[in-house]
Amino acid sequence: MALLTDENNGTSQVDGAYLDYAAATPMAPEVVQAMLPYFTQRFYNPSAPYALAREARTDLEGARARLAHLIGARPDCVTLTAGATEANNLAFAATTGHVVTDAIEHESVLACAEARPHTIVPVSTDGRVDPAVVAKALTPRTQLVSIELANGEIGTIQPIRQIAAVVRSERERRLEASEDTPIYLHVDASQAAGWLSVDVTSLGADLLTLSAAKVYGPKQVGLLWSAEGIPLRPLVLGGGQENGVRSGTENVAGVVGFSVALELAQRERRAEAARVSALRDRLQASLLQRFPWARVSGPQRQKLRLPNLLHVSFPCVEARRLVILLERQGVSVGTGSACAASRMQVSHVLDAIGLPREVSRGSLRMTLGRQTTRRQVDFAADAIERAVTSELQRTGVDEVQLLERYGSSRGAARLGGRA
Amino acid sequence: MALLTDENNGTSQVDGAYLDYAAATPMAPEVVQAMLPYFTQRFYNPSAPYALAREARTDLEGARARLAHLIGARPDCVTLTAGATEANNLAFAATTGHVVTDAIEHESVLACAEARPHTIVPVSTDGRVDPAVVAKALTPRTQLVSIELANGEIGTIQPIRQIAAVVRSERERRLEASEDTPIYLHVDASQAAGWLSVDVTSLGADLLTLSAAKVYGPKQVGLLWSAEGIPLRPLVLGGGQENGVRSGTENVAGVVGFSVALELAQRERRAEAARVSALRDRLQASLLQRFPWARVSGPQRQKLRLPNLLHVSFPCVEARRLVILLERQGVSVGTGSACAASRMQVSHVLDAIGLPREVSRGSLRMTLGRQTTRRQVDFAADAIERAVTSELQRTGVDEVQLLERYGSSRGAARLGGRA
Repeated sequence: MALLTDENNGTSQVDGAYLDYAAATPMAPEVVQAMLPYFTQRFYNPSAPYALAREARTDLEGARARLAHLIGARPDCVTLTAGATEANNLAFAATTGHVVTDAIEHESVLACAEARPHTIVPVSTDGRVDPAVVAKALTPRTQLVSIELANGEIGTIQPIRQIAAVVRSERERRLEASEDTPIYLHVDASQAAGWLSVDVTSLGADLLTLSAAKVYGPKQVGLLWSAEGIPLRPLVLGGGQENGVRSGTENVAGVVGFSVALELAQRERRAEAARVSALRDRLQASLLQRFPWARVSGPQRQKLRLPNLLHVSFPCVEARRLVILLERQGVSVGTGSACAASRMQVSHVLDAIGLPREVSRGSLRMTLGRQTTRRQVDFAADAIERAVTSELQRTGVDEVQLLERYGSSRGAARLGGRA
Repeated sequence: MALLTDENNGTSQVDGAYLDYAAATPMAPEVVQAMLPYFTQRFYNPSAPYALAREARTDLEGARARLAHLIGARPDCVTLTAGATEANNLAFAATTGHVVTDAIEHESVLACAEARPHTIVPVSTDGRVDPAVVAKALTPRTQLVSIELANGEIGTIQPIRQIAAVVRSERERRLEASEDTPIYLHVDASQAAGWLSVDVTSLGADLLTLSAAKVYGPKQVGLLWSAEGIPLRPLVLGGGQENGVRSGTENVAGVVGFSVALELAQRERRAEAARVSALRDRLQASLLQRFPWARVSGPQRQKLRLPNLLHVSFPCVEARRLVILLERQGVSVGTGSACAASRMQVSHVLDAIGLPREVSRGSLRMTLGRQTTRRQVDFAADAIERAVTSELQRTGVDEVQLLERYGSSRGAARLGGRA
């Protein structure tokens, strides 16, 4: 498959479509260019004492400052990590007490929560966390609330500002009651950073996770922002880099690449969101026209779902078989989070929104990105149509029965979502 | 400063010398070339289910297999990490009981040891760990012995095979006594991998740390090898990558680069060791001829010291001032481990070998590498001579007194080392 960039001229030959940008993004050319000098020329250890090393330190700190600026934060509150999973773990390590999180968080958040006292709040059928439910889940011992900004599987954008208000209100109550248990709001914004503002002040977060790999930057590069005064505890001990919180020789190339990537992503996010959401809607309409009994998950309201994401389930069809049929036509789509996909588990996200197993098993998660063109989307829609039709024929499932049983998503979508 | 590669033709213009390869190596061109495709074309998430992602998985596992082959190990015993510090921490996390380590280990090893019951064995004045002393330090509760293969500050190569025999013997004793406390030998081979065999079987290690950044590979890429049956415990939780031990989307580019880097380093290590040890000896002879009262640390026997390393102390001179004078002449040298250097601490390594503070404060650690030429070494020797002379003049220290007080390293070196 070739990723085509000559979109919109109408003449490009489509020979496939990559529709899994939530799992991995190619590095932007600007990012690669920014990183290259640090591989062979400016390769110095930023902790060494001579001028060339101090220049590497300056470049590292300059990149940190750019990252901080992009999230409206102070550079000294940004801890650079080897990716979002580590950043999430680091956020959790800042406290040891009770945690409140929701049922559709990333595996790394759920795994950290399950390792200590925790309450997992449910989500609505479109994946939304209710701030009032978070408020009820808080106990006097709750030290951390961890809610992602947007879900990577069904695209739900969470009401973080309202959840932040809940946490702030509990903090004020404790202050007035002279209780000294701290409480922080951690927001994993990894999947959101290409599409939404990640300004920490306007979000009201106390801890924020970002990933370079989701915004056309390098893999295994991420950051944890923490508000002033939050005492981070290291997961690895050593030379004392990152204020003692994250030891190990700094990945200057990766951090410089991350800063360029996030800058591009945040600068272009509105225009790109408009462009890809139109393509996503076209893909959704095309699939629902052909298969009205298919089920689209996540909020149907534009502002409540990631603009590049389409999660569609074909009941009584095996998504794993669809993936194979589609890859033969050059169309790459996932069945959910890549982490879970590799273990071929049923998605905890789809279970949490109450999708019956015979529906969730037929789920494709499609995420569009910078190289996605209209032609690719149409090509993918045709390929999916062929694949689903072929599977229905193979298994002898009757579409009329599917329609009777699962109704029409098209009507539901027009009515503002089934959820 | 430009790193010259046209060595040996005798015509190259020297405009500086980088002599801190133990702190950071430039990536080999072959490594950069191997990594580039994974940035923009083969960028897929290896955990995703479609063909392109499975190719990324195949490439990742191919690189893991090459790394395993280079250390004489099975691929499924290799855990990929974000660098050596994390790998050392992961090795320690495999057990919770008493640890035996030595006083000149890397900060990451010492920090991990100090966080739990531990015994730190002393080293000789040339930095060697005595296997008999390790044997005496073992208790029935000792679960881990952690000794590096070679020290990055004074270059001491440790008698790992003999230490492995000590650990093996204790393991056999426990087996016969029906004691079920496990005991493992962890070897940090980060600084050694470019110069020595890192074959785990011949070393007799149970856990082995390697770093890509020390062998002309990318930064923040490393591995922990663990013998079959050692239950590793994750430091970060999440998607379950690396057999659940190290979650986070895999850095395919970095791991591929690491495998190419280690392959090159191991293939060329004998020839390169011969080449740079001759240059190192030339530099050492040149400095000791001019300053016979200077002190060379680490073993003087060729086979007991890293071939690229020269640690020299100028008593009563401030190394930090030398670094500044040298950088103005384009010569980049460190004062010890970059981690410690950045905090301007006195080296724990030099304290441990009993170097008096007024000697250790005047220490330069010089490490040669692939781009180091004879002309660079001579240029550096001249620059160091000028810098030390200038400092002696500035402070009014008399070289005759230095010679009376500290004796002549030249004679000592000829006699097989002062240590």
